Order: sequence, then C-alpha cells, then structure tokens
Amino acid sequence: MIKVVKIGGRILDDEARLAAFCRDFAALPGEKVLVHGGSVLANRVQEALGAEPRKIEGRRVTDEAALQVVTMVYAGWYNKHLTALLQKESCNAVGLAGCDGACITARRRPPMTLSDGSTVVDYGFVGDVTPASVDVGFIRGLLGAGYTPVFSAINHDGAGNLLNTNADTVASCIAAALGASLVICFEKDGVLSDPADPGSVIPLIRESDCAALKASGTVSEGMLPKLDTAFAALRSGAAGAVIKNAGALCSAGGTELCL
Amino acid sequence: MIKVVKIGGRILDDEARLAAFCRDFAALPGEKVLVHGGSVLANRVQEALGAEPRKIEGRRVTDEAALQVVTMVYAGWYNKHLTALLQKESCNAVGLAGCDGACITARRRPPMTLSDGSTVVDYGFVGDVTPASVDVGFIRGLLGAGYTPVFSAINHDGAGNLLNTNADTVASCIAAALGASLVICFEKDGVLSDPADPGSVIPLIRESDCAALKASGTVSEGMLPKLDTAFAALRSGAAGAVIKNAGALCSAGGTELCL
Repeated sequence: MIKVVKIGGRILDDEARLAAFCRDFAALPGEKVLVHGGSVLANRVQEALGAEPRKIEGRRVTDEAALQVVTMVYAGWYNKHLTALLQKESCNAVGLAGCDGACITARRRPPMTLSDGSTVVDYGFVGDVTPASVDVGFIRGLLGAGYTPVFSAINHDGAGNLLNTNADTVASCIAAALGASLVICFEKDGVLSDPADPGSVIPLIRESDCAALKASGTVSEGMLPKLDTAFAALRSGAAGAVIKNAGALCSAGGTELCL
Repeated sequence: MIKVVKIGGRILDDEARLAAFCRDFAALPGEKVLVHGGSVLANRVQEALGAEPRKIEGRRVTDEAALQVVTMVYAGWYNKHLTALLQKESCNAVGLAGCDGACITARRRPPMTLSDGSTVVDYGFVGDVTPASVDVGFIRGLLGAGYTPVFSAINHDGAGNLLNTNADTVASCIAAALGASLVICFEKDGVLSDPADPGSVIPLIRESDCAALKASGTVSEGMLPKLDTAFAALRSGAAGAVIKNAGALCSAGGTELCL
C-alpha cells in the first residue's frame, strides 16, 4: 500500500524535529510520497520584500509578487532542503512541483464570494485541484523505479502559470488518485476529545460522527478543514486516512478516519 | 544526439526573450536537457533580506542565509517558472536540483587561496562538480520516458547539505557524462574577433587557438571561463560544443569549439 504523508510548516521550521522526521520517513517501508506546506518563511520573505502577507479565510491572496515568494520558499528552499535531508537518510527522494512532468495541473480559482456573502475576493494565482488533476503515470513511474516523490504545493495551469495550492488538498488528491493511504502529520497526537488534554485522542472518527463533533465544538477551527480534506480523500478512492503526530510516523496511534 | 543547453540570467530576467527561448527550446528535436543560472534576482532577494551579496573572483560567497536565497531563487522561482513555460509549449519538462534522485552530488569546496596568492577564502556552501558527479541513470531514465530535465545549479553533498555550484560547469559535466552536445547560450552571436563588431563571430575555435586568443585580448574576461568550461566538456566526453545566441537556438551559427 502506497503511503502519502503530509507535513506542515511547524515541522519544517524546526531543524531538530525535521531531521528526526526525515529519519522516520526514510525508514517507512514500501512506496511513499511526501507532501509539504510551509508558510512561516513565506510570510517573512514577503515582508522583507516589502509586501504585506494577506490571508482571507485562511488562504493567501497571491498576486504576482506573492507567487514568486511562495514558489521560492515552497518549491525552492523547503522542497530541496527536505530532499537533501532524505537523501542523507538513503531515501532516494525527487522534489517536485506540479509543473514537473505536468503531474498536477490545477485550475485557477475564479473570484469568489466569501462564506459570509459579503465580498467577492480574487485570490490571484491560487489554484484548486481534484484527484483528476493528478497524472498518476509520472508518479507511479518514479515509485516503480525506486524514487520517492516529494511535493511542494506549487502547481501549474498548463498555460505557463504557476499556482499556489493548499498542501492538505494536494496530499488528499494524490492519495485518492493513487488509491493510497493518507497520513496527515501535525504537532498533536491526533484529534482530541478535550483540547486541554493531549492524551484524549479519539482513535476512530466515522464520517457520520463529524456533524456531532463540529456541533459540540470538540473539533477546533484548524482541524475542521483537515478532517474535511481527509474524508474527501476517502470518498475519492484513498485506501485509508489517519491524522497523527509527526513524531510518531512509524508507530501506531493517531486518529483513524473511516467513511 | 542529446543536446545540453545552458542559459544565463539575462534571458531569465527578460520575460519576452524567455518566452521566445522556451518556444525554440521546445521545438528542438530529439532528447535534450536545459541548465540555467540566474543571479540578478538572487542579489535583489539577498539585499531585501538584509545581506550584502559578496562575490570573490566571480563566485558568490555562500553562507547559510545566502544558500537559502540561491536555493529559493534558482531551484524555486526560475526552475519552476521555466518548467511551467516549457509545459505550455508541450515540452514535458521536469525541473531538478542535484539532490533530486541524487543525480548530481557535488563536493564542498575547501577554503582556497585566491589566484593572486594573497588570501584564503572560505566560499561556504559552494560545491564543485566533475562529470563523475553526475548519475546518468536518473537522467537517461527521464529522457527515455520522454521527459526533458531542467537543472538549476543547486546540488547536494549526499550528507544533507545543499551546495551552490556554477551553472556553466554543471552543464559541461552533464554534457560530458551523457556524451552529449553542449550548447552555451548567451546574448551575443558567438565569440567575437572584434568585441565592437557584433558580426565578427569566429566560426570555429580549436583548443590550440586559445592561448593566442587570450594573449591578444580577443577573448574577454567573461568569455574565458565559458571557453575553458566548454573545452573541459569536450576533453571529458562531450560530443560537441557551441557558444551561440540564445535567440538563434534553432539556427546554425555561433562559435563551434573543437579539440
């Protein structure tokens, strides 16, 4: 079973944890794919270049200058730094953006009305992807030849433009397209029934449980889109989905999701 | 015959010329590899982040912060921008750094004495490569499957570190390792016998002509390392070498080099 592992910016910005994660990821048996985010450094570079990072409902408004920054940071520094660290651990990684081998072609998001109905926002060079956006031929070719694809969430539209996409969604779509198992890593041990108690991991969440978890406030703001994305992967063909601590990649545990 | 084409920063920084170049490159028949530089944007980002770009004998002194910048700019923005533009032209490009598939492993340059003998310089995260640094298996695998590798000159040491290398040298080493034909593109029509006359292209330079060309001052400062690099490629197995205008990629002409 292919594993598609997603890591976020908090691991990428902590060299000690990143090195430990790379050792664990390299040790995972079988075919695997890594997808990474990383927005802390992007904010810093944007500010240094005289632009103010602007996010609306959690998504970065990406004008041409911001696109250059996120491409530099995600597809450049983080992607190659990760790939070099994995090579050190004898994991034959290949760092990629969606334009490489045209393996992920995104659709530029049209101007859209915000969820409160108030405003129409043009996010700029922001792309949306679905499992159909993924050309599995290129990825399977690399996996079959013994390579481990490492994806930044920078994709292209096929018409010469790069597009900034959401890394959780990219991981979800790759897992669905490959029929793989999705592993979303973050800094907690799983979805917690009591946010104040780090040991209160819910071992299994069925999609039918979600409405109640949301209504009761058990699932926090930041966790909601991760859950939605993981269930979307399962509905579209992913073989499994788990949300767990990046430090426990090779152990059991975390919150397993099930349709 | 595989072609290895090198382009520099002046094309990368001119969107109209870059788009035209990508159309020409995509139209080149047969297997091909692109290698790119690009230091103008790297200087700008370094300055914006509060560092002063420092070059000694033409090579950037690359501390940790500078390494992050050149990786962002070369392996990030330029590499993916180029790859997306080539995809638009139906060239199935795959943007790479040397860590990807461990295809180019550089050796960190030890502190060295300057050519005037005066000073010992530690260039930091700067790497040197030879044709033996290139793992042709990964590159031939991509070419055989119909992909076109696009290399930034960011490589790794196999021990987790990225290294900044010279793009002309990377192109030369790839051409030598593949037994390919090397095409070094720049903004003039070839090596000129009279720098003031853009039409005075020397059609053929033999290695035995070099000493006289250097002594007479015909070959300028900036051209010397390009000539040396191209002859090094020929001596190490490249099937041919030409220095020509980036705008004339698909035409005859330029300066052919011959041992």
